[in-house]
This record gives sequence, C-alpha cells and structure tokens, in this order.
Amino acid sequence: MNRRRFLKGTTVLTGLFTLSPSVILSNDLEAIAKKGKKAKNIIFLISDGMSSGTLQMANLYSQNILGKNGNWMNLYAENKVSRALMDTASASSAVTDSAAASSSFGGGHRVKNGVLNIGPNGEKYLPIWQKFKNAGKKAGCVTTVTITHATPAGFCVNSDSRNAENEIAEMYADLGLDVMMGGGDEFFNASKREDKKDIYKIYEQKGYQVLKEKSDLENIKKGQKTLGVFNSGALPYTIDRNNIAELQNTPTLAEMSTAAINQMKDNENGFVLMIEGGKVDWAAHANDIAALIHDQLAFDEAVKTAIDFAEKDKETLVIITTDHGNANPGLIYGKEAVENFNSIVNYKYTNEYILNAIHADFNLQQIKDWIYQTNKISLTDEEAKHLLSFYSGLEKQETGLYNYKKLPFKAYSEIQKKHNNVGWISMDHSGDYVELAMYGLGSELLKPFVQNIELHNLMLKAAAVIA
Amino acid sequence: MNRRRFLKGTTVLTGLFTLSPSVILSNDLEAIAKKGKKAKNIIFLISDGMSSGTLQMANLYSQNILGKNGNWMNLYAENKVSRALMDTASASSAVTDSAAASSSFGGGHRVKNGVLNIGPNGEKYLPIWQKFKNAGKKAGCVTTVTITHATPAGFCVNSDSRNAENEIAEMYADLGLDVMMGGGDEFFNASKREDKKDIYKIYEQKGYQVLKEKSDLENIKKGQKTLGVFNSGALPYTIDRNNIAELQNTPTLAEMSTAAINQMKDNENGFVLMIEGGKVDWAAHANDIAALIHDQLAFDEAVKTAIDFAEKDKETLVIITTDHGNANPGLIYGKEAVENFNSIVNYKYTNEYILNAIHADFNLQQIKDWIYQTNKISLTDEEAKHLLSFYSGLEKQETGLYNYKKLPFKAYSEIQKKHNNVGWISMDHSGDYVELAMYGLGSELLKPFVQNIELHNLMLKAAAVIA
Repeated sequence: MNRRRFLKGTTVLTGLFTLSPSVILSNDLEAIAKKGKKAKNIIFLISDGMSSGTLQMANLYSQNILGKNGNWMNLYAENKVSRALMDTASASSAVTDSAAASSSFGGGHRVKNGVLNIGPNGEKYLPIWQKFKNAGKKAGCVTTVTITHATPAGFCVNSDSRNAENEIAEMYADLGLDVMMGGGDEFFNASKREDKKDIYKIYEQKGYQVLKEKSDLENIKKGQKTLGVFNSGALPYTIDRNNIAELQNTPTLAEMSTAAINQMKDNENGFVLMIEGGKVDWAAHANDIAALIHDQLAFDEAVKTAIDFAEKDKETLVIITTDHGNANPGLIYGKEAVENFNSIVNYKYTNEYILNAIHADFNLQQIKDWIYQTNKISLTDEEAKHLLSFYSGLEKQETGLYNYKKLPFKAYSEIQKKHNNVGWISMDHSGDYVELAMYGLGSELLKPFVQNIELHNLMLKAAAVIA
Repeated sequence: MNRRRFLKGTTVLTGLFTLSPSVILSNDLEAIAKKGKKAKNIIFLISDGMSSGTLQMANLYSQNILGKNGNWMNLYAENKVSRALMDTASASSAVTDSAAASSSFGGGHRVKNGVLNIGPNGEKYLPIWQKFKNAGKKAGCVTTVTITHATPAGFCVNSDSRNAENEIAEMYADLGLDVMMGGGDEFFNASKREDKKDIYKIYEQKGYQVLKEKSDLENIKKGQKTLGVFNSGALPYTIDRNNIAELQNTPTLAEMSTAAINQMKDNENGFVLMIEGGKVDWAAHANDIAALIHDQLAFDEAVKTAIDFAEKDKETLVIITTDHGNANPGLIYGKEAVENFNSIVNYKYTNEYILNAIHADFNLQQIKDWIYQTNKISLTDEEAKHLLSFYSGLEKQETGLYNYKKLPFKAYSEIQKKHNNVGWISMDHSGDYVELAMYGLGSELLKPFVQNIELHNLMLKAAAVIA
C-alpha cells in the first residue's frame, strides 16, 4: 500500500479513532509509527549485472532441479519486503558501467562511466561507507571478484579510474575499513605488484588480520579488522568450485558474508556491509548460462544469510538489488523449452574452463568427447569444426574486457542455445530497469520507482545519519 | 508498505488513538478502511509480449525524443500505484503463449499453450467477462490485433484452439458482449469467410451497431452494443499509421479505449474492459525496434485514458501489465549507446513495410537509397548484398508465425543493431517475470509477487462479485 492510498484510507477511520490534533496536522501516520526507530545496521546486496531473466531462470532452476524456491523470491512469496524498479543510468549514458553504478549508491551522484565518485569538475563525493565510519559504524565489503573492483570501491573511495586497483588496495587501509574480503592478490602481494610494495604488510601494521584461505575463516579473531584475499584475480565461479577440488580452498559469498557480519555485529553503533555477487556479471559477459545460474544461486544464499541475521537482529535494513542488467538472457518459447532448460543440470563447468581446455591440436572426435563429457551436448561435425576454427586461427579470436583468454564464448553459447533455449542480446550491459527489494527498518522509505542515486540518501535517512 | 509492516507500525500508535475493541480484534486496519468500498469498474490493460527492456526503452525514447516521461512510469514517479512481479507460466511450459496467458487471467486456471480456458480433461473454466456480465456489469475488449485473437478471447470464451477465430467471432455475439473493437474483418465478413456466413448481420440482428472506420467512432450511438472491426487482420502498427495517409482511417488504441469507456460507463452496475496493445508482441516477434517503441507508446496513451477516467470516477480498479516477455530487447552498453538509440527517431516505417517494398530486381543502389530514405542508415555494399540475397533466393527465406510474408526480419534487425545498439535474444516469447501495476479500488489486494492466475480472483474480490 502506498502512503497516498493509506492516508486516503484514514479519512474513513475517523469514526472509529479519536485523533489528536497533532496527528491530523502532521498528516503522516507512518512517520509517527516509525518515530525513533532507525536502522542500526545496513546490508546492501548487489548481484552485479543481473537482468530480469537472470533472476527468473535462477529461480526456475532452483524449483526444477533443486526442488525449492529461491530465497529472494521467497521473500516475495512471504510478503516480507518492499519492492521497486530502479533506473540505473549514469551521468554519461543510459547504460551504466559498474563504477558509475556503484558511485550512484556510494556517492549519491551520477558520475561518468569508469569513474568512482568524482564529479565533472573533479568534485569528490564522500563515499557512504566513509560517512557511516564517521558516524561510528563498522564498515565492510565482500565480493566474489577482486575486493578492489568497481562495485566495492564505489562504496568506499574516490578515484578517477576504476582501473586503479593498486591504489584502491592502499586506500582501503588508509580508511581503516573493518572487513574487506574477495579476490585480488595481485594488488596486495609484493611479488605481483610492479612497485613491489607489500600491501599486506601495511594492513598488518595497522592491526589487520590477513586471511588467505577458506580455512582461515574458521580461525578468525573476533572483532579484529580483517582483510581476506582468497585468490589472484576474482574468486572461482561457483560451478567450477563445486566440481574442481583445487578451487575448494576459496570461500563462497555466503561464507564470507557470515564471517563479515559476525566480525562487525557487536559494534555498539552498528555496521554497514556491501555484499557483491560480482561473477554474475562476468558470466553474463561470457553468455555462460551455467556460470550465471550457479553464481546467482550463490548470491541467493548470501541473501538468506543477510535476512536470517536481520530477522533475528530486528535493527537492520537489507537492500537486495543489482547495479544494471547484462545481456538480458531469457528462456525462449518452444515445445521443449523447459526440458531443454533443465538439461543445464548436466553442465559441469563454466564455458571458460571448458573452452580453455581445448587446444588447436584437438581433432574433431576429441572436441566432441570433451563437450559431451562436460555438457552432455553432442556436437555435429560442423559445430565441432566451427569451434575448432577459433583455435586453429581460421576464425578470428573473440575479444572483450572479460574474455582475456580470447575464448570463443559467443560461438559456443550459440551452440548451447540450440540445446538449452536460452538467448542473449549481446555480451555487455543493458539499460533495463532493474529489480530492488528492501527488508526491515527503513524499507518503508522506498518508493515504487527510484533512481539509483536515491538509495544513497535513503540509507542515511534510514540510519538517521547526518552526513 | 506491506500489511505486515503496517500492522507492526500500528502498535506504536496506541498512545495516540483510542481503539475500539473490535478494531483490535479484527487486527486489520486496511480492511476497515476499505470496508464497503468495492470496485464498480475494472480496466485491464495488457501490453502483449512486453519485456522489461521494452518498457525502459519506450520511456527512454519518450524522455529523449518527446521530452516527457511516459504515463506508466509517471504513475510510479507520482507514487500512485501498487506494483508486483508476475510469473507468467502456463500449464505446459515456463514460457507461455498468449492464449494460455490470457486464460490464466480469464479462467483463473493455468491451461496448455494454445488453448482458451479448457482444462486437461476438457473442463470449461467460466471466463471472467462472463462472470461479470452475470453480475450485471457491461463487458468489452479493445485491441490493436484481431478482436478474435488470443488475448481478448481468453477473457470471454472457451475454445480448444486459439486459432478458431471464425467461431470466436460468433461466440462473442452469443454472449452479448457490450463493446468489442479491433481488427479481423476476415472473421466477420461473408465475402471473406469460407462458410460465407455474414457475422456482421448476426450482430446487427442482435441490436449491435457495427463500426468500420475511425470516423464511425464520432457518430457512435451512446449505450448501444458495439462491434468495431476496423481492418482485415490486425490494425496497422502505430509508426506506419503515423506516416502513411491511407492507414489513418483506423483508430488508435487510446481512441478505441475512450470510446469503449464512454459506451459502458453509465451502466448502473459498472463495466469491465480489457485493453490490449497486441502489436507490441508482433513487433517483438519481428525484432522491429521502431514498431515496438511506437506501439508501446500508443499503449502508454491508453494507460493515460484509463487512469484519467479512474481518477475522476473513483470507483475503478486499473490493472496495467503484460502477459509475457518477448525477445528481451535491451539497449546495449557502448560509447555511443544513447546517440545510437536516439537515431531511431529517423525510422519512418516498420521493418515490415520497408522490407516488403524491396523486390528481387532491386539493384544495390536502389536498396541502399530505400534504406537511407526510410531509416537514415547507410548500408555497406556487403549489407545491401546480404539483404538482397533473401529476395533473389540465394539466402533461404526467413519464416515464423508472425512473418507470413517471409521477410528478412532477423537479418535486417542485425544490421539495425549496429546503428541503434538494441539487441534481441530471439524472435519469440521469453519466460521472464513481468511488471504489473494497479491503481484504485482493490489495488491494496496486490501482493509483491503473483502468479498470473491470481489476478482472476483478485478481480472478483475487488469487485465483490461471487462467481
């Protein structure tokens, strides 16, 4: 029910209630109802690059294959959240990148694509996690990509370029952020940085504990500032971690989320935590449906972690959304649409893993065997030849920001499409409005349609923090 | 604000209000607020096959080119509506066709794709417009496709096949529906029907006025039952009507909607009206962005018509939604994304009109001139040759249910994509969850996530009609 309709409704109530004059004057029952109740904690979950179809197909997979409704969709079924559509545009385009998108939440201003909280004339917009730190809250970010990537960075720092991940690694230490976990060893490790600076050492000198493996989470020192860098580059895709033993020393998004909440929840003034399913975006860039679904479901587990905490805590605002659409994947109409979709259960690895294992010297039978072994798809001779041509040099290699190994993602996704009925509009972000849900204290502030920048002030207002 | 949170809020109010015991017992302020208020009228608007990106791009076009926000999105900006996500699945698939989708609203049961309100064992589910007729309301449908098409039919009749449009034309007369307007002369006209039956005569014998041209709307006899059949096949696409003089004797969706409301609004027991933007779906099937945007904007004008009426009337429930996604179009990231998108203003006709004018004997320069004249796109030699090859027989003709002229829709859309940055996943429906908005009496019944079938009972409940 929106406020307007509710207020209209109240005029009918005058026969039943005796209203005090001040109530009539204030004319806003909600404000009174909420008075004195502010969100002590905020958890902001972002499934990066989640188009509408991503949410629907992950839930369909959960229902059809796992036999249960997803956690995000359960919040709707149980009527527990407020919802909105969100316009994700940046200052430079109707289609944002993740840096400008995160800056809209983080700095409350639309900035140009590629930039972190820097205005057109060099203005530095104070990032919201700094505002909350100044108000005495603990603040942290966890992500499945590098912890220095655009989305966490947009909540924390100002930078002319999202690519300045080396510098961002140092900025976090200066800011004294409380829990930062993800990938990105190359931006912290002296042996991998060009300047040979040992960033880990800087953190340790500032009193941080540094975690490097999943098992380190078990021995975490409660309350101590924490840097967790569990991989070089991003963390593995969920589907690969599930099926490749040597990747299992990295934590899931839900495991990092639980650890981060536990580290910060006892702070007297509360905490703020950003949780990013960053590889949902990368899977969309690769048009990789299995990678997409399994990372979206891993994000969905983190949603449960956050909501479970908030339901017990009763002083937390939880925001669940994405920063923009990507590739608009969707299940396509057809007689066998659902059967075909369900065959994704047979996909054992990401397309990145599968295609990276193919070499120019493979013969047709080898490529067919490998695809059958990993996807249960029987390639035709023509398809096998086409795929192989990308390795032999007959076809020009595919490129793309998220395809640094130059694998034939698009060509292979088009083959898979015939078998799984899932289509993609491109290998890049889209301008679609996106889904947003809120749970808990402050969620009553949500309007049915919001600009991304509006979430900045909404968080401050919900927590009654004056910036 | 959802009910749960609202009720939680009320506990804070006890110091200000004196509650009567019955109120505390009933524990549902909304029910009291709404008591005795039922929706006299229902207007159900369906933009057929509207994916998330369709809504976003039509609004972006409206903002960038027309200089104003769309009417649907304005309802969000002005906080006037309740919203939900809707699952559109049918009994046979996660991806519905329009017959099963309409049946879910009309009959309240999920049926197989292709079927109108017939269950797996031949059960006939009484269509909701019949239920409302039985309750003394007037009932009607207006659409931009044939009035006998799946979406209007699903609100009115039972049929084993959506293709039985000849029979459906007769069924409507038997049911005495009050206002039916759209296309489909071939299903009414004795000279066009195989059985040579004069269906118009049947309507006239039952006291209907029969309208054939837009100008007939001006001389409409108030209160008389009305059949309006303004074209053979569907009505023209909006963009073609705007630019081709001979199509301008057909009415717009908003004009038909206004006429239908005026015909029925004075009925003592109210009315129910289904308004379908049917060619939004056809434009998506054709991957035709200009057709899509202009028909979505024409639908948006009908939204305004409905809301303007409901705001004055104050006894009307307005439902605004789609029946399923189609082709998941989206604006794709890129440096020139918005400039490219804005170039759609130069598109003067549908791709159907443009491609239908090309003949096998065109030379390359002729095809280039024609495309430049109609789309301001300069084809390369290679593109012109490729396009021409579909006419010369060198390339296999494209096919499809909505491409009866076998035009190279896909090939041309892929050329346009390079210039307008809009992509499509396929030429068919998608399984995405879809957007739904409600205004007015009964909209408080809407949950944040609904199955399509739930709207059936919601309408009955909102109008307090016991079926």
